[in-house]
Amino acid sequence: VWATSSPASRVSRLSERRFTRPIWWEDDSPDAAVVVIDQRRLPHEATTCRWTTVQDTAEGIRSMQVRGAPLIGVAAAHGVALAMRGDPSDASLESAIALLAATRPTAINLRWALDRSRMALTGIRDDARADVARQVADAFAEDDVASCRRIGEAGLEVLREIHERTGRPVQVLTHCNAGWLACVELGTVLAPVYLAREAGLPVHVWVSETRPRNQGASLTTWELAQGGVPHTLIVDNAAGHLLRTGQVDVVITGADRIAANGDVANKVGTYLKAVAARDAGVPFLTAAPASTFDPSCPDGDAIPIEERDEDEVLLVNGSPIAPEGTRARNWAFDITPARLVDGYLTDRGHLAPGHLEPVLR
Amino acid sequence: VWATSSPASRVSRLSERRFTRPIWWEDDSPDAAVVVIDQRRLPHEATTCRWTTVQDTAEGIRSMQVRGAPLIGVAAAHGVALAMRGDPSDASLESAIALLAATRPTAINLRWALDRSRMALTGIRDDARADVARQVADAFAEDDVASCRRIGEAGLEVLREIHERTGRPVQVLTHCNAGWLACVELGTVLAPVYLAREAGLPVHVWVSETRPRNQGASLTTWELAQGGVPHTLIVDNAAGHLLRTGQVDVVITGADRIAANGDVANKVGTYLKAVAARDAGVPFLTAAPASTFDPSCPDGDAIPIEERDEDEVLLVNGSPIAPEGTRARNWAFDITPARLVDGYLTDRGHLAPGHLEPVLR
Repeated sequence: VWATSSPASRVSRLSERRFTRPIWWEDDSPDAAVVVIDQRRLPHEATTCRWTTVQDTAEGIRSMQVRGAPLIGVAAAHGVALAMRGDPSDASLESAIALLAATRPTAINLRWALDRSRMALTGIRDDARADVARQVADAFAEDDVASCRRIGEAGLEVLREIHERTGRPVQVLTHCNAGWLACVELGTVLAPVYLAREAGLPVHVWVSETRPRNQGASLTTWELAQGGVPHTLIVDNAAGHLLRTGQVDVVITGADRIAANGDVANKVGTYLKAVAARDAGVPFLTAAPASTFDPSCPDGDAIPIEERDEDEVLLVNGSPIAPEGTRARNWAFDITPARLVDGYLTDRGHLAPGHLEPVLR
Repeated sequence: VWATSSPASRVSRLSERRFTRPIWWEDDSPDAAVVVIDQRRLPHEATTCRWTTVQDTAEGIRSMQVRGAPLIGVAAAHGVALAMRGDPSDASLESAIALLAATRPTAINLRWALDRSRMALTGIRDDARADVARQVADAFAEDDVASCRRIGEAGLEVLREIHERTGRPVQVLTHCNAGWLACVELGTVLAPVYLAREAGLPVHVWVSETRPRNQGASLTTWELAQGGVPHTLIVDNAAGHLLRTGQVDVVITGADRIAANGDVANKVGTYLKAVAARDAGVPFLTAAPASTFDPSCPDGDAIPIEERDEDEVLLVNGSPIAPEGTRARNWAFDITPARLVDGYLTDRGHLAPGHLEPVLR
């Protein structure tokens, strides 16, 4: 479901607006659509999609109009609200939850948001459910904003300490996109970077492109350019060279699910950065809200790893990069063992490995 | 300098021919051109370039019509032969060597081939130099073929031992292209794979795409498909997941220069594979002829790392992947410390770390 305005007018309107959220209600009316930035089209076009049904939401999550673990959770809550508007019955609620839960297997925030939505709507009269579900979705969004700010404050201390020690701009290496496009505002990984900018602390971000979908090249660069943060793009392969040659002070990546033992599922390629950071003696930090921690998962081996279509590997911008007939495999995530993680930047503080109680309650 | 035949007819002629060398003399006449497969156009078009001057050769190496450390050395010797044909003077020889040496800084085979060419032509009468230089180029090519076969035999033993232990197809992970397209025949990394096929030993190759220039996706897949070797393409980021989940038996990569202490310069991203292989307990082997070892380089820090144009990162198949105005850095190689290398497959046998005397003489 596309925005009715033409892409060209939409681009200009959006760029005037310089928006800082990836999801919002179109207006205050009870039948307002959900509007999201279509992240598949960034950075070349800033277009939006309108969701009016839970099916739109499910398709939007599956096709990655929206992505990023925190945003997937918030978007799912919006989808439940859309479902309750048409049919507020328990059957409708359960079928919406089942539909949304099936879209992406790895991110735990999705399941977390759906469980919370179900709890919030249990015992609510049918004629009030649409209203309550929308309030729940809004509360999730605002909670995420507050979480990201607390993550940012925890990370800011790390960046400040590095700057005081080195006296030069702090060199942050990240992977994929864990900025506000992956959340609601600020982001997880990029929250410390944005707060550092606010505080006048010089920061430079090394952005790794993040094949196969290039969220680093297309989304993180775009976000950082909008925020005026100095940054440089590299291919994923170059992260090792940067780390080994002392050009990175700290690696910060996001997470799609963190097991009880601290193992981290995140965008494929994260593990390579973690193991190279350890080899080079550079701290590796994971930034995520409490909702990303999954106490029911004992370790990384229990986290399902989504495998996506091979065409994401075989085609770039629609053009083949390999001979016809080539087969590919396409795991979207990998597991970084807890032993390689030096710290967790969370909305409940900067947690040391082995001390995750505050987020596992 | 393009082949005069149209690309379409050339493709069909080449594919009938099913050639197995990337460089040859057009015919036996003394003024024959050098013909190379234009590797920038694979796998979509199998076109060739004709070199008639040393300037053509230098441009062909710089622009990566030909690439791969052994092939660059062989190609440079062909370039010297072309230079001697026009002007066989010492001044012409030195200027040809200087021109060719400046094309790519990292591969030592280039300098090695030029030094050997100079030695071979010293004391040769001007009127015989063109002939001798062509014989030298041919000898380099044949030596490379023999070297690759010996590398293949050393590697075959490793693959055979793995197969006997596991009883399943041997799972090899490689990076970039170190097959016959990077050499003259067989290749370095792929020689053991081709010899295993000949010997009836089942092998499957995981091909990592090798951003930014995608030599894995475009060249290694093409070579393996031509040779009927089972293979699967992955993004570079997925190598860690494969290694950590036990889907790889051995990692074999090539080298552009190996320092006296065993540090390896190879295509950027190699170090990430080496460090993840060590973390996962999977052996990491480097395959290279003696000419790739540089006794004058004490360690990897002394090896110059070529930095190439940022457009190789910013554009894929000519299309931008990042917002306009994004800046990128583009190191073409990285250093894998010797402590992460479990063995060296060379034309002088399978050498253990710390025992490189046979190739450092």
